[in-house]
Amino acid sequence: MVEAPRVTVLAGGIGAARFLAGLQRVVPPESITAVCNVGDDLDWFGLKVCPDIDSVLYTLAGVEGADGWGVRDDTRHTLESLRALGGETWFGIGDADLATHLFRTGRLRQEETLSEATAALARARGVGVTVLPVTDDPHPTVVRTADGDLAFQDYFVRRHAAVPITGVSFPGAPTARPAPGVLAAIRDCDLLCVAPSNPLVSIAPLLALAEVDAAVRESRARRVALSPIVGGAAIKGPAAAMLATLGHDVSALGVARMYASLIDLFVLDTVDAELVPAVRALGLEAVAVDTMMVGAEGRERVARNVLYAAGFLD
Amino acid sequence: MVEAPRVTVLAGGIGAARFLAGLQRVVPPESITAVCNVGDDLDWFGLKVCPDIDSVLYTLAGVEGADGWGVRDDTRHTLESLRALGGETWFGIGDADLATHLFRTGRLRQEETLSEATAALARARGVGVTVLPVTDDPHPTVVRTADGDLAFQDYFVRRHAAVPITGVSFPGAPTARPAPGVLAAIRDCDLLCVAPSNPLVSIAPLLALAEVDAAVRESRARRVALSPIVGGAAIKGPAAAMLATLGHDVSALGVARMYASLIDLFVLDTVDAELVPAVRALGLEAVAVDTMMVGAEGRERVARNVLYAAGFLD
Repeated sequence: MVEAPRVTVLAGGIGAARFLAGLQRVVPPESITAVCNVGDDLDWFGLKVCPDIDSVLYTLAGVEGADGWGVRDDTRHTLESLRALGGETWFGIGDADLATHLFRTGRLRQEETLSEATAALARARGVGVTVLPVTDDPHPTVVRTADGDLAFQDYFVRRHAAVPITGVSFPGAPTARPAPGVLAAIRDCDLLCVAPSNPLVSIAPLLALAEVDAAVRESRARRVALSPIVGGAAIKGPAAAMLATLGHDVSALGVARMYASLIDLFVLDTVDAELVPAVRALGLEAVAVDTMMVGAEGRERVARNVLYAAGFLD
Repeated sequence: MVEAPRVTVLAGGIGAARFLAGLQRVVPPESITAVCNVGDDLDWFGLKVCPDIDSVLYTLAGVEGADGWGVRDDTRHTLESLRALGGETWFGIGDADLATHLFRTGRLRQEETLSEATAALARARGVGVTVLPVTDDPHPTVVRTADGDLAFQDYFVRRHAAVPITGVSFPGAPTARPAPGVLAAIRDCDLLCVAPSNPLVSIAPLLALAEVDAAVRESRARRVALSPIVGGAAIKGPAAAMLATLGHDVSALGVARMYASLIDLFVLDTVDAELVPAVRALGLEAVAVDTMMVGAEGRERVARNVLYAAGFLD
């Protein structure tokens, strides 16, 4: 462990979860705050499901499924029974995963906020990192497609991200307020990391809250972003296709451009080292390191690389 | 099968479910309507659980658990995970059972009524009997105890029916309206059966709706009640202790007194044959037959006994 910098991570789902899991091996978990996207949340048969928060919690607790979703080695008895009843099961939830959604929904029904329910889940799973939803208010990501506006999971899971998109919108953004602790965590940390998450549907929803965007701009922290695009492809998820469709460069450089006014340092993977000069030409510091988070050691190595590049490790 | 009388059953949980299961072996299911108690319903981590309706549906579908609750041979993976999270698990729900509550809750969230959601569940399980909640409105049974007012499941399951009760109340009764089809099913049937259910917390909540009570009184059907008390004990559940505590005779005669103004014929078990004259002295017809519903054949035999006693079988 190093002398602990206070680290805040703007987080989507799996990429952020893995980065955070590496980070908590290097920095005390109590010094880390994750500000999580809620744009992907869905109502599943009346239960509140928060896929990004859950990926973060499960991964930090070390119980995440092999592909980053749900709980490791989970069964699907309830889902199979639902299917037998003719219920819609395109969003697959395992039995142990389901307990999380019941736990959360029960607390929300008792007038707890999503922040409070999330904190209770983190305590129950022994997660030391502070995990915050960016807002306790409704703040869905809406994907615009030729088939009309779709909720994120409808686009991503039900339609396998196979419908061409024409845009992304955040209709809740004008009224959603940052959850308690979010603005302070962004302003008062030493290191603010934009996780290697989808810029358009994981990070953009966070910044769509004007107060969050302002807090990032005003933060005195060292501000670092990790590229979710490596060698022109996304490590996970639909980021590459979305970037292309919406007219962005499908490259680390394309992502760096999107963040240029918000950050100080952009971290690329070594395979993209030739893009460093172009990123620097945007007025950013840039460094190419190993960003592949394979296994616990890989995740820790990436966290160390980022801390080192940002000046928090010798 | 006999020439089909239209049969309506005022139903609680397990006793009613077993009687209905016998009945559908003798009368075409399409000729049978169950009007079900909803006073025991609960909100379980945000899901709507209807224990009486579910006991009826599961038993009619032939998938009920060995003790009458839940689904046969069900697993409890989600419940175990909930317990590990520190969630309250005094109301135990299995994984396949949970699918029912998700299916129902999802439909209620889409603005379906409980009647509609129940009909969808019956279709999904191939149940031919028409299963109606007595009302689509909130209509909880409240148990008054020295510890204060308790929701039914809080009293019955969480506290194991071990708290002395001082009364039962139905605060929703003044405003709850009978669900579509309920009054017609009671008025327009040939045989109206009061199932061998708890008079105080299964049948009383049905009759607590003034329109239901009036429909029973005005019905031209042959009106029959089966005693849930056999040899001075309840076949299942807390009926005996409740009757005693609230000053009723814990006997078939005590139950007959409660129904005397509503029915034509009271059916006792043969072990209570000596009570027949006392029941007749109440102005009721009375007959003692085998009412023990052990196994599918036992259930069918009881249904045949009731149909015969009521004059619908030669």
